[in-house]
This record gives sequence, C-alpha cells and structure tokens, in this order.
Amino acid sequence: MMKRTHYSSEITPQMDGEEVIVAGWVHSIRALGKIIFVILRDREGTVQITAPKQKVEEGVFKTIKSLGVEDVIAVKGKVVANEKAPNGFEIIPIEVEVLNRAERPLPLDPAEKVPAELDTRLENRFLDLRKPRVQAIFKIRHEMLKSVRETFYSEGFIEVNTPKLVASATEGGTELFPISYFEKEAFLGQSPQLYKQMLMASGLDRVFEIAPIFRAEEHNTRRHLNEATSIDIEMAFADDKDAIKMLEKVVYNACVSVYENREKELNLLNHKLEVPPKSFDKITYDEAIEIAKRRGVEIEWGEDLSREAEKAIGEEMGGFYFIVDWPTEIRPFYTMPKDDKYCKAFDLMYKDLEISSGAQRIHIYDMLVESIKNKGLNPDAFTYYLEAFKYGMPPHAGWGLGADRFTMVLTGQENIRECVLFPRDRHRLTP
Amino acid sequence: MMKRTHYSSEITPQMDGEEVIVAGWVHSIRALGKIIFVILRDREGTVQITAPKQKVEEGVFKTIKSLGVEDVIAVKGKVVANEKAPNGFEIIPIEVEVLNRAERPLPLDPAEKVPAELDTRLENRFLDLRKPRVQAIFKIRHEMLKSVRETFYSEGFIEVNTPKLVASATEGGTELFPISYFEKEAFLGQSPQLYKQMLMASGLDRVFEIAPIFRAEEHNTRRHLNEATSIDIEMAFADDKDAIKMLEKVVYNACVSVYENREKELNLLNHKLEVPPKSFDKITYDEAIEIAKRRGVEIEWGEDLSREAEKAIGEEMGGFYFIVDWPTEIRPFYTMPKDDKYCKAFDLMYKDLEISSGAQRIHIYDMLVESIKNKGLNPDAFTYYLEAFKYGMPPHAGWGLGADRFTMVLTGQENIRECVLFPRDRHRLTP
Repeated sequence: MMKRTHYSSEITPQMDGEEVIVAGWVHSIRALGKIIFVILRDREGTVQITAPKQKVEEGVFKTIKSLGVEDVIAVKGKVVANEKAPNGFEIIPIEVEVLNRAERPLPLDPAEKVPAELDTRLENRFLDLRKPRVQAIFKIRHEMLKSVRETFYSEGFIEVNTPKLVASATEGGTELFPISYFEKEAFLGQSPQLYKQMLMASGLDRVFEIAPIFRAEEHNTRRHLNEATSIDIEMAFADDKDAIKMLEKVVYNACVSVYENREKELNLLNHKLEVPPKSFDKITYDEAIEIAKRRGVEIEWGEDLSREAEKAIGEEMGGFYFIVDWPTEIRPFYTMPKDDKYCKAFDLMYKDLEISSGAQRIHIYDMLVESIKNKGLNPDAFTYYLEAFKYGMPPHAGWGLGADRFTMVLTGQENIRECVLFPRDRHRLTP
Repeated sequence: MMKRTHYSSEITPQMDGEEVIVAGWVHSIRALGKIIFVILRDREGTVQITAPKQKVEEGVFKTIKSLGVEDVIAVKGKVVANEKAPNGFEIIPIEVEVLNRAERPLPLDPAEKVPAELDTRLENRFLDLRKPRVQAIFKIRHEMLKSVRETFYSEGFIEVNTPKLVASATEGGTELFPISYFEKEAFLGQSPQLYKQMLMASGLDRVFEIAPIFRAEEHNTRRHLNEATSIDIEMAFADDKDAIKMLEKVVYNACVSVYENREKELNLLNHKLEVPPKSFDKITYDEAIEIAKRRGVEIEWGEDLSREAEKAIGEEMGGFYFIVDWPTEIRPFYTMPKDDKYCKAFDLMYKDLEISSGAQRIHIYDMLVESIKNKGLNPDAFTYYLEAFKYGMPPHAGWGLGADRFTMVLTGQENIRECVLFPRDRHRLTP
C-alpha cells in the first residue's frame, strides 16, 4: 500500500514539480475524450488528479478509467501549478493504487446532490460523514473538547473516571436503565454527581470527567438523547460563584478556540459563531419568570421552566446567560440553600437551550440527610455517599455541561442528533 | 468562606512576612503547653501552622485548640521562615475558619499509622485517597491520560464518542451485560471496535476515544475488572506497522511525561519508572511459545497464552515488548490475515502483563463475511457494520490500550484495583 505523504490541504502551487502521494475517495470523475479528471477527497479537502492519455503511462490511464465514485485510491503523482485548476494546481499521476471499490448505487449520496432525511442519514452515518459539512460538526466538537480539557489542565483540575455501573438509583427522579450484573441488579449512571462529590472528601480538590451518561427518559425531543456526553467538574473549597466563573472560562475559551482554529468548518456550516464576553449576564429565577409572564407564557412561581418559558426568556436574553437563585424545592437534594426559599443553583442557557446546570452543594451531613428526606427519598439508599460527609467534607461546588448541546451551540445545529455520531433515543439503538 | 491563596507546596521561606490563606485537613495536631502545632494537609502537601498562645488572638487560639484530626479548616496567617520547621517555614495564624468537623474515630486512618486491607480501603475510598501515596497513583494516571491525548492531537487524531448502548452482541466471545432499553433488549459495549472501524469508512481518517468498556467476564483476577477505561484508536490508510509505531509513540511519550512531571509522586510510591527506548522489542508468537516451552510451561502452538506462559515470557523479555504474527484462528474475526496461518495482530506486553492489543483489520467485504462465518458467527448479526465495508472502506489498523493496566505499569502496582477510583468486579458494585 502506498502511504499518503500529504493531505490535500497541505499541497500548494508552490510545490510545482514535487512528487506527492495522496489518498482518499473518488469524489467525482469526468472523462473528456483523451483526458480524465478525478477529484480525490480526503479529510482536509479535495484535490484534482488530471490524467491526459498522452502524458500518463498506459496502465495508469486504464486504472483511472476504471474508477467509479467513492472508490478508495492512493495516487503518486507530480504537482503541477495550473491557474485553471481548483486551488491553483493539479496532480499528474505516476502510479495509482485502487485500495477498495465501492458498490453502486450508494444508499446515500456523499456529494449531496440528493438531500436525504435525517433517519436515512443516521442509518448510513459512515456515508453521511463523508460530506464535509457533516464532518465539520465533529471537527468542531473535537476542538471544543480539546479546549475544555486545556482549560481544566491550566486551572489545576485532575481527570477522574467514575463508574457507570452503579448499585442503586442515585439522584432519584430521572429514570434509570436497569442492568443484570451477574446475580445482582444494577443501574447505568445518570450522572457522576454523587461520585464527584465523594471525591471532594478525598482531597483531590478539583476533578473533571468527560464521559457518557445514561437517562431512561421517555420524551423524544430535538434536545434530548438517552445516551449523552457530559463534561463534569467539582471544586472543593469553592462556592457557586467560583463554579460560575470556571464555567464562563471554559465556555469562553472553547468559543475562542473554535473561532480561531475552525474557520473553515464554521464556513462550511455557514455558521457565524460569535465569541461571547468573558462574563455572561445573570438573571434570577424570579426575573426569568417575570420575563416569561410578560411575554404571555402561563407559568407560576415555583414551577420548573416549561419549553414555552425557555423560548420566551431565550428570545429576550439571546446568547449565553445564567439563571441563578432557583427555588430550593425544584432543585436536587444536594443543592445548598441560600435562604429558606432560594438555593445556590444556576443554569447556563444559550438562547432557549439549557446547556449546563450546577450549584454549590450541601457539605453538612445533618443538613444533607434532612434535604434527602424533604425530597421524599430514603437516606438509607445513600449510605456510601453520606459516609463521605461525616469525616471532613469541605464546602464544594460544581456543574455538568452537556457536550452534545454545547456542540449544537458552537455549530448552529437545531437537532442534537446532528452533533452525535451514533445517537441513541427512544426509537434508535442502531447503528 | 475564606478562599485559599496558595497550596502548601506554593509557599516558600522566601515569602517570609507575607500573608497567605491555606485550606485543607488537620493532618495532625500537637499541643505543647502554650504552643499548638497543626499540620494542615492539602492536595499538594502539608504545611505547619504554629500557634503560640501569646502571639495569636485569643479566639483564634481557642478555635485551634478545639480542632481534631481530619477537621476541614481554612487559615489566614503570616509566613515565617524557620529553619526548624518542615520545609523551612511555618504559618502564624491570624484567622481560622472551621469549614467542617470530622467524626472520630475514623473508619480508616489517612495518616496510615494502621495499615488497612484493600477491601476496607475501597469501602472508604474517600478516606483512602487522603493518603498522599494513594493520591499519587491518580495524579500519575491523570498525567498519562493528558500525555496520551497530546500525542493524539499532534498526530492528527480526532476525538470521537461512540455509543455504549448497543443493539447486539458485537464481537462474539466475551460475555455482555444485558440492559432493558425501553421495550427492547440492548447490551453494554464491550469495546468501540466496530464503531471505530465504521468510522474509517467516513473519512475522519484517524480517530481516538478514551471511554469506559464493560465486560461480563466472571473471572476475578488482579488484572481484570468488569468496567475498565480503554484508550482506543483507529487509523485509515494504515497497516499493522503504522499502528505499532503509533502505540510506541503514545507509550514512550506518556512514560517521559510521568518521569519528568511526576517525580514527587513516583517517589511517594517508591517506584523507579524507567523511560523505555523509542522502539520496543518484537518477538513472534512462535518465538513466545518457544520461550514458554523452554521455561517448562506446557503449551501447544495455536493456544492463547496461558497465565503461566505470560509469566515465563515476561521473565525472559522484561519491560515493554510486542508479540506479533499471531495464529489467525485465535484472533478476532476482523483481523487481517498475513498468510494462511498467521495474521497481522499484535499485543503490547509489559513483563507478563498484556496492556494493549491491536491489528491491521480486514477491509475487504467478502473476506470479512468469510471470516465472520469461519468463527461460527452469523453475518446477519453484523448488518450495520458490514454495510460500511461495501462503499469504499480504506485499509485500516488500530489498537486498544487499557488505561487502568497502563497505570499499573506507570505506578508499579500489582493489583488493577489500586489504579481505579471505584473498581467494579464480580463482587464489588459499591461504593
């Protein structure tokens, strides 16, 4: 097998006369009498292979003539600067290796001449991903994850891996997927919440985890999946304000990284990403309810925000903003109260989409047991978790940021399924 | 809450006279008449708080007097250079805040005066992790993961997240955990193998994933867990030799990073990590069998390596080495044959521990279907996977590297449970 020396994007007209090896898929092929033009596509773009019958070896010309779209080839050839060719150069082939053939017709057209339904695209994800526009989403997702980790590294966070197989229903509320674990019953973790909190009693001080979470929720929306990727942190000796600042830093840095390093991909998606300010607007839950009501949404104080409320608030606020000071009764048991009505919880929104949720947590054992009981849960189900609060648990705060939803924001997608390679929802468990 | 200005390790005698805030746990406390010494422990080390009754405020002295081991405190104080104090300085307290109290006696002693059994330690992992020696393992694990990703970034790999909820038993052989997925049956992914291969048909070219894998294997050894973290890559337009080179690069770079950046942690573990050469020894499967036989192990050609064989080979080889050219019949169906007897598979060993397994894969549809049948598996169970081989699948190769096992090597641990925060085995599903 000939090995690629250059991606398409690494070749320039200035390399005129140089020998290169390119490898990829036949994006298109066009024969004009005694000259054949092949557009070869690789991850970084396309390159034109020009094969004039009189200038290339007979065997090579024959091989090129036999090619069909989406065949996989490697081509050794000479770079020739040519103003008329795309990107200002073409490659005159010296040797062509057919690495694999493609059956035709294809179940999905990577050249996108025929638009396809999302379901057909997801069924044939490997072909769908050959579209540069679709690949761009995952290159931006990659850039975001890289940036997020770099922020964590520079802020002194330690990466942890907490178990996804758990013995009991953790947070209560959201439904869990049951598993048969040998002779026992177990569940899939809906979040690393209880584990990252336990680690705050360990002295690891600041931890992060980027890992799958599993939620057996029945609703099927454009913003929910049953398997998602969550970016989680927890910080000891910290309060809700510290956690909010860290979240602003992580989100801001990721926007800058994507903006600066993924211009090509943003253009392919026709998405104008705006770099936000370093600090985001904050409104209280009460103010949010006010806005929703003013815009005609029927909602009462103490209710969670309905989809309609989110839309109304999102329209007024735009961009990234926090909703803080939530009623204690509608937040999870581990949330630290601020007074007898409100708690130290926050949501980070982008327009009408909630992308992160966090809080300062309760670190006092007795208060926590009381809060568990107040939610109608049984403290006995939390033995291991509660143990960690008895022997020196520092104050702590943290959040979870949805990697898939954050990718929606960064790429301008309306459906979360566009931002996950192989999405899992109520009806889709394949491929 | 007073906020920490410095970790213990960030304070030096040169800061004499400066005011700092430190925060952490009371590691020990000793009252000598009118002077109290508190050793405060944080993630980065310990610092001595010296409270002479005559020099500190009365309320502060009283608070300090009330402290017990493992209470959580924040201390504002003045740095005073003192040759007799540990690290050459002490802190004279100005203000002390008790952030949380610890119940006593502790179920486990973080000061390690009393050695504890592994089971007791895992039951009380949050306390076990307060031991600097135990924390060192996870700091080295963090350093390794960081280095591995940096190598992937610099080698042009794109991070992917593949689903852990899968519709059917993937590779055959290893047992799977069944899940109830709404009205359907599903399984937990035992490896991202089939997904990362499908992605090779997408043009993403080089992908990596670091994620949990789940194996319902019944054996309970010091080298296996039922939930593990796997570092996976797949490279298109590449063969087994390319994959081996990439693995050498990843392992070498991680060893260098740990060696250079985690000297303190290696010392705590009393582990002499040696940086390996950039290229590792390679022996064939046949040679490995030879070695085992010569050392008295009963083994026949064509068998997988028994524990005894691994031990014998490990003793002879030492350090990192590859076993290559395996018999096709004992490797998974997707392995590319080399001839009618051997295949392009490799294992990376460290002494007697297999830490990675990889191969060039079959990229030809007909050959793959034949191979699935030859293993007694049904191609119909692989419909989605096989589709990806019909429409232009490039040659490709890859490997999976066990993050937990690699951590064993880097930290000198003999039991994989030491290298996982909350291990999951046949009998342990908590905490």
